[in-house]
Amino acid sequence: MNSQLTIAIHIIGMIAWMEKEQNRPATSHELAESVGVHPVYVRETLTLLTAAGLTKGRRGRGGGTVLARAPEEITLAHVYAAVRDNESLLGRPRGDIGKTCAVAPIIKDYLAETFAEAESRLISRLAEKTVAALSHHVIETIKGRIADRRLEDESNPPAS
Amino acid sequence: MNSQLTIAIHIIGMIAWMEKEQNRPATSHELAESVGVHPVYVRETLTLLTAAGLTKGRRGRGGGTVLARAPEEITLAHVYAAVRDNESLLGRPRGDIGKTCAVAPIIKDYLAETFAEAESRLISRLAEKTVAALSHHVIETIKGRIADRRLEDESNPPAS
Repeated sequence: MNSQLTIAIHIIGMIAWMEKEQNRPATSHELAESVGVHPVYVRETLTLLTAAGLTKGRRGRGGGTVLARAPEEITLAHVYAAVRDNESLLGRPRGDIGKTCAVAPIIKDYLAETFAEAESRLISRLAEKTVAALSHHVIETIKGRIADRRLEDESNPPAS
Repeated sequence: MNSQLTIAIHIIGMIAWMEKEQNRPATSHELAESVGVHPVYVRETLTLLTAAGLTKGRRGRGGGTVLARAPEEITLAHVYAAVRDNESLLGRPRGDIGKTCAVAPIIKDYLAETFAEAESRLISRLAEKTVAALSHHVIETIKGRIADRRLEDESNPPAS
């Protein structure tokens, strides 16, 4: 999985936040700056998110990327499904498993089933978190910090 | 994670099976043949399992590796903990995250928490599966196959 999922969630969270707070699409350059990766990598990830029906491009002046559905209807499990490769998260049973051993293929099948069950539990947690909740969390955290700074400024007025 | 977990579970399953069915320790050569990897890699994995208190070496003639506890008391979550690296299964938030962006570190923290929650759900499934259950499954499957073959032989007696 490396950092592909993290980047994709970060991107979609930023898009949701910009739509809500600034009412405009996000450009791949803005997204790249926020995530700290090359814009080419952002565009590759946007291609996957758009193919999965989670985001869409808006062309022309002031163009960029917006969400393709309401942020309440996009969960982190959707993002996971959009960017994951075919390999099991827990590692696939090796292809060159001992051919002379009767036990090996039985263990292999047992693990394939167990890993699939374990992974679906993990996904169930991601499915409980929406992009709207992530975006809301970002907004509330920033508001909280601004309020904290104001309180600090009031209790420590600059010397005049 | 690649295939490290699969190999470790395969190894510990084989050790449990050999103790139960053949009442003897497993050598790293036997384990390597069953798993289909080099004995050096098996020994590296055994070092991790032994450090975690799941297996132990038995020296001398007829020596090898045995379980350090009853197979009912070893779960696949113990094996997972023994071999996992420090990195989150879902990928860690990148270190070079955009420093100029106020939103980026908030998303990073949110994801670290969410990924930890999702991973602990996955582990909860692994914790429900014991090495005894895996070993039992292997034994029952082999018995079933032998019984199937007997039935087949009886219904298709060789021409005399």
